[in-house]
Amino acid sequence: MTSAQFIDLNADLGESNAGNPVSDDAAMICVVSSANTACGFHAGDPHDIAKTLEAAAERGVTIGAHVGYRDKPGFGRRFIDYAPAELADEVLYQIGALDALARSHGTKVSYVKPHGALYNTIVHHEAQAQAVVDGVKAFGDLPLLLLPGSIAIEKAEAAGLRTVREAFADRNYNPDGTLVSRRESNAVLHDPDAVAERVLRLATEGTLTAVDGSEISIGAESVCIHGDSPGAVAMAEHIAASLDSEGIAVRSFL
Amino acid sequence: MTSAQFIDLNADLGESNAGNPVSDDAAMICVVSSANTACGFHAGDPHDIAKTLEAAAERGVTIGAHVGYRDKPGFGRRFIDYAPAELADEVLYQIGALDALARSHGTKVSYVKPHGALYNTIVHHEAQAQAVVDGVKAFGDLPLLLLPGSIAIEKAEAAGLRTVREAFADRNYNPDGTLVSRRESNAVLHDPDAVAERVLRLATEGTLTAVDGSEISIGAESVCIHGDSPGAVAMAEHIAASLDSEGIAVRSFL
Amino acid sequence: MTSAQFIDLNADLGESNAGNPVSDDAAMICVVSSANTACGFHAGDPHDIAKTLEAAAERGVTIGAHVGYRDKPGFGRRFIDYAPAELADEVLYQIGALDALARSHGTKVSYVKPHGALYNTIVHHEAQAQAVVDGVKAFGDLPLLLLPGSIAIEKAEAAGLRTVREAFADRNYNPDGTLVSRRESNAVLHDPDAVAERVLRLATEGTLTAVDGSEISIGAESVCIHGDSPGAVAMAEHIAASLDSEGIAVRSFL
Amino acid sequence: MTSAQFIDLNADLGESNAGNPVSDDAAMICVVSSANTACGFHAGDPHDIAKTLEAAAERGVTIGAHVGYRDKPGFGRRFIDYAPAELADEVLYQIGALDALARSHGTKVSYVKPHGALYNTIVHHEAQAQAVVDGVKAFGDLPLLLLPGSIAIEKAEAAGLRTVREAFADRNYNPDGTLVSRRESNAVLHDPDAVAERVLRLATEGTLTAVDGSEISIGAESVCIHGDSPGAVAMAEHIAASLDSEGIAVRSFL
Repeated sequence: MTSAQFIDLNADLGESNAGNPVSDDAAMICVVSSANTACGFHAGDPHDIAKTLEAAAERGVTIGAHVGYRDKPGFGRRFIDYAPAELADEVLYQIGALDALARSHGTKVSYVKPHGALYNTIVHHEAQAQAVVDGVKAFGDLPLLLLPGSIAIEKAEAAGLRTVREAFADRNYNPDGTLVSRRESNAVLHDPDAVAERVLRLATEGTLTAVDGSEISIGAESVCIHGDSPGAVAMAEHIAASLDSEGIAVRSFL
Repeated sequence: MTSAQFIDLNADLGESNAGNPVSDDAAMICVVSSANTACGFHAGDPHDIAKTLEAAAERGVTIGAHVGYRDKPGFGRRFIDYAPAELADEVLYQIGALDALARSHGTKVSYVKPHGALYNTIVHHEAQAQAVVDGVKAFGDLPLLLLPGSIAIEKAEAAGLRTVREAFADRNYNPDGTLVSRRESNAVLHDPDAVAERVLRLATEGTLTAVDGSEISIGAESVCIHGDSPGAVAMAEHIAASLDSEGIAVRSFL
Repeated sequence: MTSAQFIDLNADLGESNAGNPVSDDAAMICVVSSANTACGFHAGDPHDIAKTLEAAAERGVTIGAHVGYRDKPGFGRRFIDYAPAELADEVLYQIGALDALARSHGTKVSYVKPHGALYNTIVHHEAQAQAVVDGVKAFGDLPLLLLPGSIAIEKAEAAGLRTVREAFADRNYNPDGTLVSRRESNAVLHDPDAVAERVLRLATEGTLTAVDGSEISIGAESVCIHGDSPGAVAMAEHIAASLDSEGIAVRSFL
Repeated sequence: MTSAQFIDLNADLGESNAGNPVSDDAAMICVVSSANTACGFHAGDPHDIAKTLEAAAERGVTIGAHVGYRDKPGFGRRFIDYAPAELADEVLYQIGALDALARSHGTKVSYVKPHGALYNTIVHHEAQAQAVVDGVKAFGDLPLLLLPGSIAIEKAEAAGLRTVREAFADRNYNPDGTLVSRRESNAVLHDPDAVAERVLRLATEGTLTAVDGSEISIGAESVCIHGDSPGAVAMAEHIAASLDSEGIAVRSFL
């Protein structure tokens, strides 16, 4: 069997409000290879973001712009019906702001991952998907980290952007490769061993076991892990240890 | 007499809120050589800012980042007691965001002018002056447009940044070269002819007449004109016509 | 013919940003009987709002809470996918804040009119319509000013709230009583005489002429006029003069 | 010895951002008699605030409006140079909004405590102190919870408002009754027993031991405890248990 010797792990970082971070960035940065970094619209103030960027730069973690709707009270989790031209410029503004902060710490924005409701909206909303692509393209030819099946993948590739598909370490999947809805009680995996095993198989075989027990193939170049729930850091460290013991490097998809 | 054949005119642009601009940017862009462009903290939404940047780029107007306190309700006119490290990153964030928008329209940020209360604060507040310089420096070696006598000039020059002093077309001056306080009834010149004459003498001789009738020398490389009051566009056009009739070009200080 | 001897005119007021009002409140307050007053979420800062409330109180104009989505950059014109319980509390918060300001000027909030995208959303969105009703009801039994046909009318009446239907002075109507979409070139009436005639007929006969020339009956207790476009004040004053010359009083629906 | 049989304990509650609370409100509400409740300017969204109000109402905890500067990114901890008339209306707006939310849960705002930088500013800033008093007075004759020695006490009493002085459970005091500055390493008490002992002596004798070992008399009607640091809930519960074991009731100052 030919298998990958590495996998990219990405997590959401820099998501503070008023100096109160929602996850333990210092710990997560020691685990992941890609930091989806808040840009100040759904969360994050410049100085807090800068501290996360500095730590990521020190660890050689790749920086992604985690662009979102301008909605701190809603943490970017509420759909907002932006006009496409507005949204494109809001995306561009965020990437530029984050890149300036990153460059002051010797790194830069190397990819873009839409956040929250924006990420989910551009799975199906053509105009907003195109707006996100336009905003990224206006900044430069950065890869976009997206959900497999997202209509934004088509738009991005049509615009000549690289797309990177991701899987979720702790989410259950339907047999057709879609995520089990969060409205279902079994949407999320809580067992650290099961999650670590999931990531290992994604890294080595590109497959996972769906909720009905069937094996499915997921062409993911990156695996998203979460840092904002109790036990998240422990789970992340368990994943990292498991990969390490199998000789799988955690490495950016770039 | 050896006289300058050109002068830089700067004005505040891009200061919309919810799509409602506070000045007639399209008209002002035809007059000025330098556009102090709002960055979204004291005013301006990305898409509105982008429209101003596009128009400025088409006219060859130089773009400055008009960085301010994060205070849209107060239009950046209220002092905020930021920690210096916070302020530096807020300045850097704004420049980066504006530069990304500018580059998408084929131009870029070429200088920085602090706005409102921030501009006035760094005349005397050492820590905030240093923070602004640090924020600019972190982005790159951009010139800073400042009030003569501002302590920020010292800080900027110590950091190796070029500083550009400005005069105000429509403000009265004390014999010592300071501005007559806005608390005084004669703080502002309202007569278009007097203002045009003022700008002409600043351009050709570098002097102006203070409120006591004395002649004073003002070493200003740029003259600030206002676009946000009734009659502002007419006054700006009157200044431009007056300069043109004397063969004085309006040109960036760069 | 039995005809009404009065009509309510309502307009949007208090919609400043950073001290820049979007309409001439002082002039509009002399024309209308009901002031839909911004509550600080889509527009308006407390002190500016208070000035509008003070002027309205002096003229005996009835105050309505013009509640909206929390979206100043979008002026409340973008749909936001709030959870209903969140939206209800956001509505309640706004009414309470405005009522406190109003009471400090000897008046109070006497009705509620949703603004912009929220107004349009609750025409058809059951959960948000119910949330608005819940928020109003939690404050007290205030009448709701709504579009005829809005599903919010059903929800409000089911909750025991009075509903007041409004017509629009300057909008064209389809024969079925719906508004001609703003996407159509003939959506808005611009001729002051036609608009004044429209309001007069609404006041006296409760009818208007639809775009196809047919007469339709509109059971409206209030007519909305606009203050935020060029010529708006002149048009408002023309409407008022026309009503006055026919002996029709402008009076709150309360 | 004649001693008080009760003491008021107050704490800051409702300080969420984007649904992330900064303290364990559910636990703190079981300890305190007075809840300084965020009003949405320095922290708190209406629906989160409402949940805290509901819990406080169920426990019979008195609600105070914790009014602050409009500065969520700075958590209200940065001085803002508001014009007094603006500040008064911002204070009034916050009280009105919170009171509406409180009344929907069967309770109401019964006092006002300024937050953070505003609290500290009105110790010495006459115009802002007067503005806070004006804003409170415009709402109604609510007591103000303040630092002993604050100039706001004079302003409030001159306006006919009741003032309530508070002591801090976990702060060291200078011999003259002022707080040891947070810049000093011994500003804060960390030992739960020392803090509990402190509160007990404040409740029974109205005295505490200053940093130099001298006994000082503090005329405080309320003691502020903190809920936003690690171990805060445990310390609060230790204080409550200590008071209970001595037969001292925790009761509002009202």
